[in-house]
Amino acid sequence: MSPGGEQTDQLASRLDQLASTCMRHCDLISQMTECEGEITRRFLTPPIQQSHDYLRGCMETLGLSVRVDDAGNLIGRREGTNNKKTLLVGSHLDTVPGGGKYDGLLGVTLGIAALELIGPVSLPMNVDVIGFSEEEGVRFAQPYLGSSAIAGVFESDWLDRLDGDGQSMRSVMEAFGLQPSCISDAAYRTDEVIGFVEAHIEQGPLLYRVDRPVGLVDSIAGQSRLQLRFTGRQGHAGTVPMSLRHDALVSAARWIAEVSRVGNSIDGLRATIGRIKASPNARNVIPDTVELSLDVRHFDDKIREDAVTELCRIGMGGEEKDGVRFEVIENQAQCAVQMDDDLCSLMNASMASKGIRSFRMFSGAGHDAAVMASKFPTSMLFLRQVTGISHHPDEDVAEEDVAVAIDVLADFILRVAQQVNDQDKMKDSR
Amino acid sequence: MSPGGEQTDQLASRLDQLASTCMRHCDLISQMTECEGEITRRFLTPPIQQSHDYLRGCMETLGLSVRVDDAGNLIGRREGTNNKKTLLVGSHLDTVPGGGKYDGLLGVTLGIAALELIGPVSLPMNVDVIGFSEEEGVRFAQPYLGSSAIAGVFESDWLDRLDGDGQSMRSVMEAFGLQPSCISDAAYRTDEVIGFVEAHIEQGPLLYRVDRPVGLVDSIAGQSRLQLRFTGRQGHAGTVPMSLRHDALVSAARWIAEVSRVGNSIDGLRATIGRIKASPNARNVIPDTVELSLDVRHFDDKIREDAVTELCRIGMGGEEKDGVRFEVIENQAQCAVQMDDDLCSLMNASMASKGIRSFRMFSGAGHDAAVMASKFPTSMLFLRQVTGISHHPDEDVAEEDVAVAIDVLADFILRVAQQVNDQDKMKDSR
Repeated sequence: MSPGGEQTDQLASRLDQLASTCMRHCDLISQMTECEGEITRRFLTPPIQQSHDYLRGCMETLGLSVRVDDAGNLIGRREGTNNKKTLLVGSHLDTVPGGGKYDGLLGVTLGIAALELIGPVSLPMNVDVIGFSEEEGVRFAQPYLGSSAIAGVFESDWLDRLDGDGQSMRSVMEAFGLQPSCISDAAYRTDEVIGFVEAHIEQGPLLYRVDRPVGLVDSIAGQSRLQLRFTGRQGHAGTVPMSLRHDALVSAARWIAEVSRVGNSIDGLRATIGRIKASPNARNVIPDTVELSLDVRHFDDKIREDAVTELCRIGMGGEEKDGVRFEVIENQAQCAVQMDDDLCSLMNASMASKGIRSFRMFSGAGHDAAVMASKFPTSMLFLRQVTGISHHPDEDVAEEDVAVAIDVLADFILRVAQQVNDQDKMKDSR
Repeated sequence: MSPGGEQTDQLASRLDQLASTCMRHCDLISQMTECEGEITRRFLTPPIQQSHDYLRGCMETLGLSVRVDDAGNLIGRREGTNNKKTLLVGSHLDTVPGGGKYDGLLGVTLGIAALELIGPVSLPMNVDVIGFSEEEGVRFAQPYLGSSAIAGVFESDWLDRLDGDGQSMRSVMEAFGLQPSCISDAAYRTDEVIGFVEAHIEQGPLLYRVDRPVGLVDSIAGQSRLQLRFTGRQGHAGTVPMSLRHDALVSAARWIAEVSRVGNSIDGLRATIGRIKASPNARNVIPDTVELSLDVRHFDDKIREDAVTELCRIGMGGEEKDGVRFEVIENQAQCAVQMDDDLCSLMNASMASKGIRSFRMFSGAGHDAAVMASKFPTSMLFLRQVTGISHHPDEDVAEEDVAVAIDVLADFILRVAQQVNDQDKMKDSR
């Protein structure tokens, strides 16, 4: 066997070991939960403290200097040699109630593993591995608390929000040992940040379908969230002839079928009715009211907005035919977020160097990366999810894919380091 | 003005007065309720006792002899002169929670008013005006308690049923002063009953649509009650492409639209999905389960059964296309009930004699008449309902229509009396 082959074997065995350790971290931290038998770690609850303690141990072992900022983000820094700039790597530590092992957490452990793979080689820039304190928005109905603080977009009136037990965010932070009044100090200056990279399990089935261990995310979809109401006329199921009915559920059903049809006809569009409530919802009464949620996403805001307009037009169009009123009760929107071209190119190069065919995709779900992208160049790497289900105990990843992600992420960090070195040399030569 | 004209005027004025009194009875009894501000009179609750006290006063004033049987039915008898046979007239006194003023109760007051209109003229048969104790099935989830006792089909194990407060039917009856062990004594012998006639508001809009004050019911529709389940696959609203979804709500919606289409295509069919429950019913999650109720009614059992088979076939047919499983969880049925031809002919003649064009219809809702028809010749008269809504405070009837109903019902009783007299004469002459 050639010396190169031996090296390759060594690398493979090292990656296997690191991937196995990542999986074990996720296993152990999944047992840190608010609720025995399920995985629930909400913002600043005791299991978040436990996960901090555990990950601090991992980070300190690698020689990172660890701190918790005043938004409750856990940050481990690998110091750079000759540069004041910092590359941020990470994801979130909280979960939805009854969530999975890997959503968020895996990205933090991947950051740590990538630094371990890189080893003692000197890097010009700092690398901060961040475990964001809160992304899911469960406890205070406000997502992205951790990344908002780091991006400097944390809104101070969020501190007055109450959780389900009536505790304010401010008091919860204080009880955790944080100083909410200093939360603005958690923000990184844009001129000190090279960029942010988040590795995260894909929350859908695409990578599994196209048979890729990882994929490059080049944008996060924009989203329209609507609340709709169909209002017909109540009646007795046995006594009102079909032709005289104004059945709100039948009209809603026709519209739901249309939403699916339109959704399928536009490439990349996702249109979902997740919530439905019929009134009076009794077996023998024709429903007079149906309320629905509509969630529409696309990476192109114009396409998304046009689709929403078309779906509302179809809803209105049914009014005359069915005698059932269609109303838009609420219509909120959030624009798509583009990832940074340069960082994406570097990530693409890293993937190519590891023999992974290029696969660019958009994220249909929101991520800390979307908030970070508002201030810093940002890139995202998705890992194949075997079951296609997220926010659920069935969430799963393959250890081999974790190994690939560590390899790609380490290579990406080295490429960023190379770029920083090149830029420094250019500056010096001027 | 001719003496005949004067008589007509007198009759009209008398009918107006009786109709006005009926409306007032309904107004006053609607205030006897379990719940201030709404109309709720469940089986053997204090407001039922109040309604008994009130109606006993009305009946005694007319010279009826009043009793309450051991099923809690209030019965006022007008004694016949020369016959052991009895004509039963009535409807129920209980309501659904938050019901209307007229459903059930109006039919009892119409029976009383018809006897008042007939006045002191002697009738060969007894006429028993019955206020059935329970028809809606709310308190013990078992409808038709009163009429079942009178028809002799009361099942003694119903006595062990518990209400929402954990009280057994037996103990509730005893507390009301009834002897549940004697409930079989409440049954009328079939050979003593000439027939039963129930006047009831129509619980639908048909009479209003065809502009008739009253209509003759010639059958009560059979009914299929199904519980169905669509099972797809849960997923994130943002991350699962439309083409890879197994959305239980979309499949259910397509099917609901088909139920409406099939329902509209078959004359007289009524097909209703009143209840829908999606899981997990969250805005950003593709529903994996949808449960639905299906209520199908028709006066022809074969047509109803064929329609149910066809709807299930359509549900099954979607499985392959959508990858969403369709299951029938429950499928109960109740056959259609035919009213008695002879009594219907008499009622038709009464309507014609009052200048009302014949209008025969079926009842899509169940009634005490359906239970009574299992033992006794039975007929039913519907009154036009102005709003088309029943089981609701908006239930309404016009006083003029009540006057017509009193007139028709009194004429019907006289025709029955005439028939009894004719039969007696035939017997005598033999």
